[in-house]
Amino acid sequence: MKVSSQTIKSVKVEYYQIPLAEVLSDAKHGDHTHFEIIALHIMTHDGFEGMGYTYTGGKGGRAIYSLLNDEIKPGLINQDSTSIMAIWDKLQWDLHYVGRGGLLSFAISAVDIALWDIKCKRLNAPLWQVAGGSSDNTKCYAGGIDLNFSEQKLLDNIGGYLNRGFNAVKIKVGKPDFKEDIERVAAVRNLIGNDKILMVDANYSMSVEQAIRFAKSIEKYDITWFEEPTIPDDYKGFARIAQATSIPLAMGENLHTLHEFGYAIDQAKLGFLQPDASNIGGITGWLHVASMAYTHNLPICSHGMHELHVSLLASQPHAGFLEVHSFPIDEYTTRPLKLENGKACAPDIIGTGVEFDPQLVKPHLVKHS
Amino acid sequence: MKVSSQTIKSVKVEYYQIPLAEVLSDAKHGDHTHFEIIALHIMTHDGFEGMGYTYTGGKGGRAIYSLLNDEIKPGLINQDSTSIMAIWDKLQWDLHYVGRGGLLSFAISAVDIALWDIKCKRLNAPLWQVAGGSSDNTKCYAGGIDLNFSEQKLLDNIGGYLNRGFNAVKIKVGKPDFKEDIERVAAVRNLIGNDKILMVDANYSMSVEQAIRFAKSIEKYDITWFEEPTIPDDYKGFARIAQATSIPLAMGENLHTLHEFGYAIDQAKLGFLQPDASNIGGITGWLHVASMAYTHNLPICSHGMHELHVSLLASQPHAGFLEVHSFPIDEYTTRPLKLENGKACAPDIIGTGVEFDPQLVKPHLVKHS
Ligand SMILES: [Mg+2]
Ligand SMILES: [Mg+2]
Repeated sequence: MKVSSQTIKSVKVEYYQIPLAEVLSDAKHGDHTHFEIIALHIMTHDGFEGMGYTYTGGKGGRAIYSLLNDEIKPGLINQDSTSIMAIWDKLQWDLHYVGRGGLLSFAISAVDIALWDIKCKRLNAPLWQVAGGSSDNTKCYAGGIDLNFSEQKLLDNIGGYLNRGFNAVKIKVGKPDFKEDIERVAAVRNLIGNDKILMVDANYSMSVEQAIRFAKSIEKYDITWFEEPTIPDDYKGFARIAQATSIPLAMGENLHTLHEFGYAIDQAKLGFLQPDASNIGGITGWLHVASMAYTHNLPICSHGMHELHVSLLASQPHAGFLEVHSFPIDEYTTRPLKLENGKACAPDIIGTGVEFDPQLVKPHLVKHS
Repeated sequence: MKVSSQTIKSVKVEYYQIPLAEVLSDAKHGDHTHFEIIALHIMTHDGFEGMGYTYTGGKGGRAIYSLLNDEIKPGLINQDSTSIMAIWDKLQWDLHYVGRGGLLSFAISAVDIALWDIKCKRLNAPLWQVAGGSSDNTKCYAGGIDLNFSEQKLLDNIGGYLNRGFNAVKIKVGKPDFKEDIERVAAVRNLIGNDKILMVDANYSMSVEQAIRFAKSIEKYDITWFEEPTIPDDYKGFARIAQATSIPLAMGENLHTLHEFGYAIDQAKLGFLQPDASNIGGITGWLHVASMAYTHNLPICSHGMHELHVSLLASQPHAGFLEVHSFPIDEYTTRPLKLENGKACAPDIIGTGVEFDPQLVKPHLVKHS
């Protein structure tokens, strides 16, 4: 391969542990005390720099750092930074034996997002335009990680979302006694009134039968979707739940290969797809899933990483809802998420629109290359 | 939880890079110049020590080291070393967000094998007995990583296997021109005669149509199985190949969750299952798959790690063939694999039967805790 000016000159990797102001809990992942960001900077011979990243809920970040720094970085040098799909595909096969999803998908995501950042900068355009250009804003909802909040604290938290301008909210379910979940759903619906949108997320904590019983119990509260009622591997279990209730099902944050989304679309009778660009192989992976959603007549949504997904959702004609996540990432970026009339606005910044403020993240840098 | 004498007192992790005498190649993983071993030592309060490990073909080992050392080790301390299934299950869920297969399955495998080593030592019995006790030996074959060998070197290599006492051999296929693959299969069948067993392995390098054409071309050479003709994610593609040929299909080395084996059994029309205890969640994971094979009337085989799998295959009533792998692990253990009348003998050593010779592996230790 000839070394053109567009080729990759150098790569840096950074690993951050960002503390949470309070412990956040859901049904299956346990307590979150901090989250991890693994960031990757790619510099080209013609002077472009792209920043990509992935994150976790607190575990596995150092393994991702190792994949990026020890395995992937050497092979990126002198690759053509504009051949994004070729690099994406090569990484999948080079590391296939320890890949096929799992942690490798997180590492590839960081590389891919950095390359897209460079692509947008070469085009002198913001991501929402480069990725599809349908719009520069998107429907969105606030996703609470609130399972262990008392009912009063849950309602206060939801009230806070409404005050910030959200028209849609999601709460966690999966209490040991499902009647308590029903009470919390009823209380939240009562608080927000009939015009606002409400979703629930069980983080795959229920059996199929428990999920069916719960779904039928909350149908009357006008639930827009029931997210991850049971384990993501049980596609046919999802289908049994979907057939037993009028509430659409949603999943995606735990599907880390395009094949897994294929199985889910074929078998799980989903109403919404929620890929996460930080673990489905970056923007390339996310747009693949968006394409699958389009051809299967499904709205495309997202999980986490709203600072990036806002541009991807805005770009797509079949966008559903952007999840605005509870991790306080907006405290560390140069451009916190903006809402207008209940919609999230994609940044008009050249590139992905995501920049971490060096002064704010620096105290949390654990290691770097 | 009370701290009983059986609880885990300490854990050590080691990362080795073991060189290969020559570069070994297959169709999709590229060139192997070394392999990696990530070993884990678990010590209990009542004085038992168990050694577990996993390995890779050269990439990803440091990420596995990080998972074991940074994420998993702290949580193992004071756990009951006899509650193997509980620990296995807890690790799957604690790290689920970055898991569901991939690298996490390798890390859990090392933990699980160490706990089984302790279990066998508590029972004062060898693994072949504890795991099932059907027999202390198993059918086996020599698996070459020989795609880039010239035809003469390929035949010399196969001749070497016959001289060592093997009655069954497997060669790699997936040459750019499939007619060359056919010639190599014909030459090997001619060399070994009609009574020996021959398998082929494409390392998922073919399309479904290419695999069907190739399978039909080599049916006349009495092929015992066709391994990984196409990508492991394409279960239905496997089924199309299986329906078009009389050669049974085999796979498993790239399936890293029990759910994936479930899909493969349901959809891929396999003739042989080949789980690898180093990446399916250790002995616990391997025995789960062996149980699935039993109930689905399929022989259970293995991939890699023959020094351990020999005991697992021997233990099972429905054992197929042990793969005797090309990585020279036997040069580093205290008990290299023994063949008798073409069968591999399970070690009568208390524990898993696998011990690395400290003097032999020490020069290759890269880091440890
Ligand atoms: Mg969720
Ligand atoms: Mg193989």
